[in-house]
Amino acid sequence: MNFFFDPDGVAVIGASADPRKVGYYILKNTLGGYRGRVYPVNPRYETLQGVKCYPDVESIPESFELAVYFIPATFLPDTIRACAKKGVKGIIIESAGFAEVGETGRRLQDESVRLAKEFGIRLWGPNCMGLLDGYKRHVFSFIINDQVFKLLKPGNASFIVQSGMLSAGFLMMILERGGLGISKMCSIGNKCDVHETELLEYLIDDDSTDVIGMYVESIMEPKRFMECAKSSRKPIVMLKGGQSPAGARAAASHTASMAGDYTIMHHAFEQCGVIEVFDINELMDITRGFSKTRLLSHDAGTAIFTFSGGGGIITSDLLHARGMPVAELTPQSLKDLEEIFPEWMAPSHPVDIWPAIERYGYEKVYGRGIEIIMNDPNVDSLIVHLFASRMEVAHLSNLITMKDKLGKPVVAWCAGNGEKLKNFRIDLENAGIPVFDEIVRGVDFLAAFKKHAKKSKR
Amino acid sequence: MNFFFDPDGVAVIGASADPRKVGYYILKNTLGGYRGRVYPVNPRYETLQGVKCYPDVESIPESFELAVYFIPATFLPDTIRACAKKGVKGIIIESAGFAEVGETGRRLQDESVRLAKEFGIRLWGPNCMGLLDGYKRHVFSFIINDQVFKLLKPGNASFIVQSGMLSAGFLMMILERGGLGISKMCSIGNKCDVHETELLEYLIDDDSTDVIGMYVESIMEPKRFMECAKSSRKPIVMLKGGQSPAGARAAASHTASMAGDYTIMHHAFEQCGVIEVFDINELMDITRGFSKTRLLSHDAGTAIFTFSGGGGIITSDLLHARGMPVAELTPQSLKDLEEIFPEWMAPSHPVDIWPAIERYGYEKVYGRGIEIIMNDPNVDSLIVHLFASRMEVAHLSNLITMKDKLGKPVVAWCAGNGEKLKNFRIDLENAGIPVFDEIVRGVDFLAAFKKHAKKSKR
Repeated sequence: MNFFFDPDGVAVIGASADPRKVGYYILKNTLGGYRGRVYPVNPRYETLQGVKCYPDVESIPESFELAVYFIPATFLPDTIRACAKKGVKGIIIESAGFAEVGETGRRLQDESVRLAKEFGIRLWGPNCMGLLDGYKRHVFSFIINDQVFKLLKPGNASFIVQSGMLSAGFLMMILERGGLGISKMCSIGNKCDVHETELLEYLIDDDSTDVIGMYVESIMEPKRFMECAKSSRKPIVMLKGGQSPAGARAAASHTASMAGDYTIMHHAFEQCGVIEVFDINELMDITRGFSKTRLLSHDAGTAIFTFSGGGGIITSDLLHARGMPVAELTPQSLKDLEEIFPEWMAPSHPVDIWPAIERYGYEKVYGRGIEIIMNDPNVDSLIVHLFASRMEVAHLSNLITMKDKLGKPVVAWCAGNGEKLKNFRIDLENAGIPVFDEIVRGVDFLAAFKKHAKKSKR
Repeated sequence: MNFFFDPDGVAVIGASADPRKVGYYILKNTLGGYRGRVYPVNPRYETLQGVKCYPDVESIPESFELAVYFIPATFLPDTIRACAKKGVKGIIIESAGFAEVGETGRRLQDESVRLAKEFGIRLWGPNCMGLLDGYKRHVFSFIINDQVFKLLKPGNASFIVQSGMLSAGFLMMILERGGLGISKMCSIGNKCDVHETELLEYLIDDDSTDVIGMYVESIMEPKRFMECAKSSRKPIVMLKGGQSPAGARAAASHTASMAGDYTIMHHAFEQCGVIEVFDINELMDITRGFSKTRLLSHDAGTAIFTFSGGGGIITSDLLHARGMPVAELTPQSLKDLEEIFPEWMAPSHPVDIWPAIERYGYEKVYGRGIEIIMNDPNVDSLIVHLFASRMEVAHLSNLITMKDKLGKPVVAWCAGNGEKLKNFRIDLENAGIPVFDEIVRGVDFLAAFKKHAKKSKR
């Protein structure tokens, strides 16, 4: 599969000079990051975006490994034949008009798959957004956004997403939020050949991927998928589309997917330790949590360190509702916390540090307070509420070092606003502490993380 | 209760010239919007922020209706006696150090309540953020944020929030997001006298309030509360703190609240049509939904109009998971939709308009498409996915007029980013269409709205 992500030579079939056309962006994005040979193909141009353009695949003078296809569906079989002569190993088909539009399209798709197999060419798509590699900065995709290269950061999260528009929108959502680096983003559409399970196996073996987020509307080889998921030590975060009758019908006309019986699938996910989510932001958030968090030393309770009594109470209630134990601090920890509490207020848990802040300031209260709590043997993880507008990430150096040393996951919820909040959040996430906009999402992530940690220990 | 929100004369007891002190902000905020007489009280100053300052309450030459109190707890009984001589009707006590800190504070609080009752003075708080009136621009609160007056917009949502820090943070969260106008924000802390049920009754009678959002840690007069809630035609959105053992313990030390048995309360909420939520953002979002949405003409199914096949599928699944029927469009509607579909794609539901957009553009597709869907008798509500970066709210004039004319609630989910998204969202919300950042939240709101509409018809 490497030739899809890191090919030796790429042809862009259907490249265009017209910024209203998708083919314009595929070429632009390919040239934007890929440092190998690029061959735009379009009989109407001599050059395109400063690169020599070829009237057809046959005219390309050298062999190359990858073709990105965006011309009408009917030309695909002939294109496969032409590519075979050039030593092409894979074709990413981003055009629509195949199995998702009915019987004629289905026949065309099946014929193409058969033909490609004959020539030993792998097909990716059709009806998809292509792929993106965050480390190599390869963007073999029509995604229309000037910010992609600016915002793209390499990282340990990879995604497999079935749905062209959703991949593009989802990717931009991730990039614009920041804080989550990407290894590989794979948009697979109708997945006529390369499918989710093959990619999942590839990503589980990929050293630069630590967590895999997925949106799929069907699973092509369920048994193979479940075996792969079951043995995976890397977390797999799954948003399964087509759980309902209406959703399943829509999946059929969207990517020609047979959604399958969700009840059976849900139980299979549970058995194999696949982490299910149910909305797009949740897929991003939970994957981001896993991408930042590594170790769970032992199983005890979650501590809460907050500037808001109400926030601490809501967090306790949400932990309880998710079956997560709230930590009971040791008498020693409570005694130690007196150092940073005013004498009229006895420390208790959740630790509400507002009165302490007024007296000792953020640095001391967060520094010393977190040291005490993180070292408490009854604490296995921490939810910390932070005040972006009044704090610096420097106040949290203790937290950042202790988290991994002690193997106690930390999630943060930040009050604040605007640029200050955004920068604070990014700094924290770069330091390995995931931030969640809603308290409940942090709790859900911790629950998923603890569950996954137990699976990994089996 | 009017004298709390619109008093004739306000004394700020504990006003300060020092921007590191809470008393500085109470005076600043009071002067920032209130146009009546203001009397700062502090023996250390002659004037404060340009206003004559008095050494004590007794020295104030005229009568006045409201005192805002921020000096140490122990001075409260004497202050009540002094206020009684000045005809004061209410005291907002924002200081802490009362029942929430233990037995001594509890006795002080009880004594103050007894004394105030003797003089016919109502007490608000203690240990709270005070109040804010969006129409009158009265901010009798210590909230520390220069943006308050700039961001504060009047509107039909009122809040009752127990928890000082949370009220302040929650208020700023609402103001910074925009799109939700506030009638009255009431932070009630230990609620030693004025409590949630009395305020709820007041807000149900308040012409400028259409929806009430609440965060409380206990309910002081449960029977009275439930009767009030049951008969209310205005939606009551409730985040109940202290549902869990750890949360209830924390509530006791936070606002001296007895959280009560949540299981019993949960069933009572259900019976009385109180809409429960479980996190802070959710309280804001669901309240905002109700503030924008009025009518439900009949009970059928929810239509989905989306630019993303995947988004439509996820929305269908989420509706199904919440027991909400997905609309079956009539054959006539599906036929009418052919107008805006390319001939190779048959319209289906969820309506995925991406191919149509490519051919006919946003204005025609959203204009005509929404007209067809909204007029379908099988549709009682609509979830619409919008593309903030490529659309104008003008493309949606149809939607905005049809929504209330037909009595079919509409919720939106918007892709896009930055300022463009923010402005698009605010324009839409000003036009009466609530926008939700996550699809699931819009679905949850619609479910709550339909449930409430049925209650109102009983």
